[in-house]
Amino acid sequence: MNQADELARRVAEAMFAREGVGPALGIAIEEAREGFVRVSMTVRADMLSGHGIAHGGIVFTLAAAAFGYAANSRNEATVAQQASIALLTQAREGETLFAEARESTRAGRSGVYHVKVSASDGRAIAEFTALSRTLGRAVIEAH
Amino acid sequence: MNQADELARRVAEAMFAREGVGPALGIAIEEAREGFVRVSMTVRADMLSGHGIAHGGIVFTLAAAAFGYAANSRNEATVAQQASIALLTQAREGETLFAEARESTRAGRSGVYHVKVSASDGRAIAEFTALSRTLGRAVIEAH
Amino acid sequence: MNQADELARRVAEAMFAREGVGPALGIAIEEAREGFVRVSMTVRADMLSGHGIAHGGIVFTLAAAAFGYAANSRNEATVAQQASIALLTQAREGETLFAEARESTRAGRSGVYHVKVSASDGRAIAEFTALSRTLGRAVIEAH
Amino acid sequence: MNQADELARRVAEAMFAREGVGPALGIAIEEAREGFVRVSMTVRADMLSGHGIAHGGIVFTLAAAAFGYAANSRNEATVAQQASIALLTQAREGETLFAEARESTRAGRSGVYHVKVSASDGRAIAEFTALSRTLGRAVIEAH
Repeated sequence: MNQADELARRVAEAMFAREGVGPALGIAIEEAREGFVRVSMTVRADMLSGHGIAHGGIVFTLAAAAFGYAANSRNEATVAQQASIALLTQAREGETLFAEARESTRAGRSGVYHVKVSASDGRAIAEFTALSRTLGRAVIEAH
Repeated sequence: MNQADELARRVAEAMFAREGVGPALGIAIEEAREGFVRVSMTVRADMLSGHGIAHGGIVFTLAAAAFGYAANSRNEATVAQQASIALLTQAREGETLFAEARESTRAGRSGVYHVKVSASDGRAIAEFTALSRTLGRAVIEAH
Repeated sequence: MNQADELARRVAEAMFAREGVGPALGIAIEEAREGFVRVSMTVRADMLSGHGIAHGGIVFTLAAAAFGYAANSRNEATVAQQASIALLTQAREGETLFAEARESTRAGRSGVYHVKVSASDGRAIAEFTALSRTLGRAVIEAH
Repeated sequence: MNQADELARRVAEAMFAREGVGPALGIAIEEAREGFVRVSMTVRADMLSGHGIAHGGIVFTLAAAAFGYAANSRNEATVAQQASIALLTQAREGETLFAEARESTRAGRSGVYHVKVSASDGRAIAEFTALSRTLGRAVIEAH
């Protein structure tokens, strides 16, 4: 693993250790490199909507988690200013979902990231895009 | 309360009773009328991001919940096809957030809904917009 | 007309006089007040897509024009960082379209604006939302 | 060129020949393959906003044109239901802009496309994402 990818991994793990959402939803970081992160999560009963399918907010949160680790992967604290999701296929209780975040563009303090959410059978569940903004500080002490 | 608003209230309560997300996040339905819903939620430690603020996914989920009750308020099962959020101000642990969903347009099977998320001190936290699609069935038996 | 609305009108007229797009598309400013603007445009042959309907980009541009005048209505130079459109109904050559922009929220240098585009028969054509950012200068000399 | 890419090229040319917008804006189709299209356009005075920069609506229209040719590249008539743009850097009069559209996902009648708009010096100008819907008919007679 090169240094940039090792830093990305350390930042993702540090963010996960500090946060509430990732552990609460059972999110696992499968892979974290510079500008790329893959996470997984299994849909539980407490993640369903009133229509009996995975709630769009939970699918969005999974995608946003992948985005967060990818956007902070250079150890520059970065948040989403705006994000969008297209919900393509319904996900059911018990299914494991994967979210892959990729950096598409950086320009000044802004960046654009795309996240694909898919099910383990390969179905496209959702596509997420975020516009990020750096905060001008580091995420972790990089020694 | 007129009949349309009473139906909206019954649908919202039925959806809430069936779903996982609303109870799991401690969402409360404050008001539900035809095409308008107001919900509240208090930010907990398990809703924070690695930056120590309310996770954008949780703010989105609160907004999406308000949207869901509003979009189904005529007892026509309706889901989001696409949704967007602008994250304006950070929310902290312990703050109570309110989300107000309003129907803006309906055209055929599609609709557009706007949701404002604000804190109890009046700060604008986020603005959410969803494009909905009806599924062609009822949500509850309306007798 | 109060002073705030008079300033909004003067800013919109000054922007229109300087710009290329509004005159090129035959956009007319019907009403301009603080935080609210209504414009119109008639769909021409050179605005059609390959499917023979008003091009989504032209409908977006009409909405973005209304947004621009509304977001600059306090004489603080403001641009869109991000914008979204839901295309609801097709518009045909010869139809006159109206776009109404309304300020929804301002928070620090950011703002959220909603624009409804409708046809003269009342059909909902599109809904547009923009996230704005102020540039820290005036649009016109306000004497 | 394989057959799929040849069909994509024929569809793009046929759409361009029928439409108003592409010729009116001086758009040129640089490359058209199955699920991928690259177009260019030079910013003219009649494409500027009141701030003296390329109007966001015109940048959106260029991106939407690239999307349109890419989304119809299999000769299945397809339109945008919803589209979003992040405006990253300003473009000036006289600059040539390029828009590259790529198919990201197809699921049933829906699809997601990403378009990058850049200037000839490599600056990222904008990122566009569209949610498409097929109409159930062909674009051209494919003999």
